[in-house]
Amino acid sequence: MNSIKLTLRQEEIIKLVKNNGPVTSEALAEKLNVTRAALRPDLAILTMTGILEAKPKVGYIYSKKPSYSLVYEYIRNIKVQDVMSNPIVVDENTTVYDAIVHLFLNDVGTLFIQNNGILLGAVSRKDFLKIAMGGTDMQKVPVGVIMTRMPNIVFVEKEDTAYLAAQRIMEHEVDSLPVVERVFDGSKENLKIIGKISKTNITKLFVKLGEAN
Amino acid sequence: MNSIKLTLRQEEIIKLVKNNGPVTSEALAEKLNVTRAALRPDLAILTMTGILEAKPKVGYIYSKKPSYSLVYEYIRNIKVQDVMSNPIVVDENTTVYDAIVHLFLNDVGTLFIQNNGILLGAVSRKDFLKIAMGGTDMQKVPVGVIMTRMPNIVFVEKEDTAYLAAQRIMEHEVDSLPVVERVFDGSKENLKIIGKISKTNITKLFVKLGEAN
Repeated sequence: MNSIKLTLRQEEIIKLVKNNGPVTSEALAEKLNVTRAALRPDLAILTMTGILEAKPKVGYIYSKKPSYSLVYEYIRNIKVQDVMSNPIVVDENTTVYDAIVHLFLNDVGTLFIQNNGILLGAVSRKDFLKIAMGGTDMQKVPVGVIMTRMPNIVFVEKEDTAYLAAQRIMEHEVDSLPVVERVFDGSKENLKIIGKISKTNITKLFVKLGEAN
Repeated sequence: MNSIKLTLRQEEIIKLVKNNGPVTSEALAEKLNVTRAALRPDLAILTMTGILEAKPKVGYIYSKKPSYSLVYEYIRNIKVQDVMSNPIVVDENTTVYDAIVHLFLNDVGTLFIQNNGILLGAVSRKDFLKIAMGGTDMQKVPVGVIMTRMPNIVFVEKEDTAYLAAQRIMEHEVDSLPVVERVFDGSKENLKIIGKISKTNITKLFVKLGEAN
């Protein structure tokens, strides 16, 4: 991982500003026993990275929100393929009961329904709970009958950003999105399911971003 | 929000490096029609922020992972109270059936069980689905019987970091954590529920971090 390598003097400046509130460049120069001119490049680096903020006529203050644009840029560079996991799939003739067992065995929140790898639909834990409450004969009804069917499923492709995936998850209020690849069968375009990205993947990514490196 | 304000020349340098792979400072100076000395401060800023990487004897390359340490610092500054939402609570005598209805009406994944604001337990969508599959009489059994009971519930406090919450969510494989406040009743410490933080809150936060500002 790349990271800013601050010099000892820059670390010292940060400490002085952090502990003493607004500090002018004159005061910093005096405390560090250097000229103001000598400090200029360090202060430029520290303000451009957003670690310090320069308030005119007040001095330098420590910023609690460093480098927002870099966080933004970093996050926008993470792709779906970097964080996606394997989808748990069943075919449409599986009974609802067996599908729920499958859901528990794999400890996932959403099952994807496929035929020869082609995405047909999805069923979430919430959908299953609704069905279980409704008195449907779960041993007889196939999952294909209760699934949300294409084209009513929001998806992403592996080259999309994890940011876009998270945005779609929030906007469409779902827990998980299938990751698909477009395949052509004659003139018809089908969507092959190759992965999934869920709130769990995003939470895991968030933990990774906050980890010491 | 603070952010790095790149100069036009810095933006130009990034573009050149992005499009032309490794570029030496000589080549950059020539393309921009300036001296190498004039470019030095810009290149210093761009490498220190991690946007560019300097490879000895190769040149500058565009880094896909800028400023990891700043991302890290930024993320570690976000607190639970900045992102938590209201908990949906029922009391322990509520029937399982009514609790599930409550879950659907509020469109949440986890219900917290309380008595006078004190946290007693939690039940997730997954727990409910298990009960629904098991043939329990949901109209008769109170939710207090099937809940995961304190002290077996992982929680956070509002001053904890969102990072810690995400970490606990992943480690304990739950969707949601209660946010509690310690209250003292004589010598006994109780936990008052004041919020919740879930994978949904973390996903929403991730989207916010990736938003243009």
